[in-house]
Amino acid sequence: MPSLDSVLACLDLNIDRSVARLMELLRIPSISTDPAYAGHCRSAAEWLAKDLSAIGFEAAVRPTPGHPMVVAHDGPEGAPHVLFYGHYDVQPVVPLELWEDDPFDPKLKEMPDGTKRLTGRGTADDKGQLMTFIEAARAYKAETGGLPCRVTVLLEGEEESGSPSLNPFLDANKGELKADIALVCDTNMWDGETPAISTGLRGLVGEEVTIHAANQDLHSGYFGGAAANPIRVLSKILAALHDDNGRVTLPGFYDGVQELPEEVKKIWDGLGFDPAAFLGSVGLSVPAGEKDRAVLEQLWSRPTAEINGIFGGYTGEGFKTVIPAEAFAKVSFRLVAGQDPDKIRAAFRAFVEERLPADCTASFSPHGGSPAIQLPFDSPYLDTARAALSTEWEKPAVMIAMGGSIPVVGEFKSRLGMESLLIGFGLGDDRIHSPNEKYELKSFHKGQRSWARVLDAIGRMR
Amino acid sequence: MPSLDSVLACLDLNIDRSVARLMELLRIPSISTDPAYAGHCRSAAEWLAKDLSAIGFEAAVRPTPGHPMVVAHDGPEGAPHVLFYGHYDVQPVVPLELWEDDPFDPKLKEMPDGTKRLTGRGTADDKGQLMTFIEAARAYKAETGGLPCRVTVLLEGEEESGSPSLNPFLDANKGELKADIALVCDTNMWDGETPAISTGLRGLVGEEVTIHAANQDLHSGYFGGAAANPIRVLSKILAALHDDNGRVTLPGFYDGVQELPEEVKKIWDGLGFDPAAFLGSVGLSVPAGEKDRAVLEQLWSRPTAEINGIFGGYTGEGFKTVIPAEAFAKVSFRLVAGQDPDKIRAAFRAFVEERLPADCTASFSPHGGSPAIQLPFDSPYLDTARAALSTEWEKPAVMIAMGGSIPVVGEFKSRLGMESLLIGFGLGDDRIHSPNEKYELKSFHKGQRSWARVLDAIGRMR
Repeated sequence: MPSLDSVLACLDLNIDRSVARLMELLRIPSISTDPAYAGHCRSAAEWLAKDLSAIGFEAAVRPTPGHPMVVAHDGPEGAPHVLFYGHYDVQPVVPLELWEDDPFDPKLKEMPDGTKRLTGRGTADDKGQLMTFIEAARAYKAETGGLPCRVTVLLEGEEESGSPSLNPFLDANKGELKADIALVCDTNMWDGETPAISTGLRGLVGEEVTIHAANQDLHSGYFGGAAANPIRVLSKILAALHDDNGRVTLPGFYDGVQELPEEVKKIWDGLGFDPAAFLGSVGLSVPAGEKDRAVLEQLWSRPTAEINGIFGGYTGEGFKTVIPAEAFAKVSFRLVAGQDPDKIRAAFRAFVEERLPADCTASFSPHGGSPAIQLPFDSPYLDTARAALSTEWEKPAVMIAMGGSIPVVGEFKSRLGMESLLIGFGLGDDRIHSPNEKYELKSFHKGQRSWARVLDAIGRMR
Repeated sequence: MPSLDSVLACLDLNIDRSVARLMELLRIPSISTDPAYAGHCRSAAEWLAKDLSAIGFEAAVRPTPGHPMVVAHDGPEGAPHVLFYGHYDVQPVVPLELWEDDPFDPKLKEMPDGTKRLTGRGTADDKGQLMTFIEAARAYKAETGGLPCRVTVLLEGEEESGSPSLNPFLDANKGELKADIALVCDTNMWDGETPAISTGLRGLVGEEVTIHAANQDLHSGYFGGAAANPIRVLSKILAALHDDNGRVTLPGFYDGVQELPEEVKKIWDGLGFDPAAFLGSVGLSVPAGEKDRAVLEQLWSRPTAEINGIFGGYTGEGFKTVIPAEAFAKVSFRLVAGQDPDKIRAAFRAFVEERLPADCTASFSPHGGSPAIQLPFDSPYLDTARAALSTEWEKPAVMIAMGGSIPVVGEFKSRLGMESLLIGFGLGDDRIHSPNEKYELKSFHKGQRSWARVLDAIGRMR
């Protein structure tokens, strides 16, 4: 495979230029969840379409009711067809004061151990990851004049904000987007040396719930004792979401949840996962999930209820003896195979309503809702990709599950009848969604090489 | 009493000018809890010292480690000596968007029923109230050339932020401030027609508690299920503060709390208090306190635990699937006679610590701490003031209790050995501490006349 060798050499030779390109993209603050950044989201989409066009893709920014999609096509007709998916939007950057540098002024930093990393919002999630694929395609084209298989690229701008425009877009462009297999680059390696393909992904249901009590903020001196306090009502409800064993108490929550198959359990046991080290890495020591489950199960194969945000009353400097008119929380549920997002949402709403005092009301605002997915273990693409990854990293690629949800994977399956290969080069300490997000230069570089190998191998499957 | 008559006539004649003076003071945004407003607090103190000097008081702005005090003296030596107390600082004004007008651009508005009211932050709490006394003193001096008794004025600038400088100031100036009786104008009438003297006041203990979990914000996809969520920990703790009957569950919380004497219960029963109307006025219907207590007891004679603020995680637009590193709440306890603020604070801290998972910690920040007070019913000043108020309002003044705390009253008693007469002209719908605070012009005007009568009557007690 001399052509692959030259592609890999080209990637090695051009690593500095690929870093510079990524940094350009990282400087665009494409925060999708905040409407104030809509213009920047559009700029990121335009930057990507331009870059893909420069490589030779037929690329376009495609409008949606929200942030646009980028769609691009290239490669020989008749060859195996892959759909590459990534997202160009990023998470918000609060609390800003915890960042060592401006989150949108990316840096390439050398660590004391000599390794290098890219820092800034989106380095790992997902701009750095998606650019590994684009760089692989660029080098392939540059060295061989074409791509080894048919490639469609789909880059979303709403992944971090519930993907409201995704489903209509998939439905409206089914014929154009349907491929033999989807390649999704938004996941982690097992560790810094071990490549991984994620074959299971938890789903997600998000709900914002607001408890309304009095029709105005009250002074606790005048009303305290007699007036309903919505923070107290909300706390009671949230506290009731878990029992003392860490189990979620929503009626019907575990309906349809399957026990882990023995063979999978065996693979996971063999991973050498160290719960103490995992929790210790973030300053924790006590597993917070169901007490009778191993930590890897708590993370990968068991559903959860999580409070992601809460607010009510006076939270500024000093003190204000107020009983607020309302209080809200953002709650999310990680789902596993067998759970229906709609049923979970309805169960949560009923759970809240049942616990309201007669003079309080609740309002709800949904955020996303996707079932968990489980990929078949006998897919020929899975074998092909595992082999390619194992060659690049000189270590067998492992099949793992993911605690996070990537809703698009479920939608590819249900709407386009297409399975997904989840191959990513992030690491557990990349601080995605947190201040000081980073992406290892090794991830970026060997990620590019990995994609070159995977594309090359899939091209040979015809 | 021709001199009193002319003083009252003078107050009637000058009501427009007194409103204009009050508005000047209201325009100074003297928010004490926010350090950014320290300069404005100082300006308010200077304005008051200047105004008192103009009347003829020997007045000065007196420094403290925080916002300054205003102290002024006037009136004949040897006459009965009163210490008038008020505070020139005001509550914060968030949420600003709920105000009909700029909170610091006061207005005099005519209502559809022909009554007039002053609107803006501080109109009722406490600038409008304290100016009733100053206007009475001004008219007395103008009409008679002097005051009927010795008057010391003490105006504080930290009442809304826990009064950190009050106690050292009282201790350092004991000889100067100790009088025969304190007159405090920071309370309400019973209703718009019925003057009231508050003989019982609940105390207050405030605590800000922060729960610390992981050493960084975490992504709930990667860590959800296994990592401690400080919002969940906090919610569990806050939810446990009350049992299902509305009783506070802190161990020892009710130690020393006395049952209401039968005679007081009788007075309160005779007030014609309507719990449904009281709660209905703010859109509520279900008393939230101890189930076996009347609402007036819940408000006046029973201690409470209240959550005044809560914050954690992502609370902006959209959603962020974060498990935050920490979450905090501002909690306050209203105390009644017999409860020790220090013991309650310690009990709360122990309550929190006992409920922490092993890998979480809590930090605490105290805010204020004052015991409840109960004034003796046989004070001659109480009789004198009741008679004066009853004459002005042509309706017997009632003795009531207050749900709110006025820490200074307890300190006057313990540090200066001085009882306080709590006479105020606020109304329950004045929206103090809330958007659109107001003060009835009738309160402002008849409040001035009331003080003229009270001063005159106390002057005759020699």
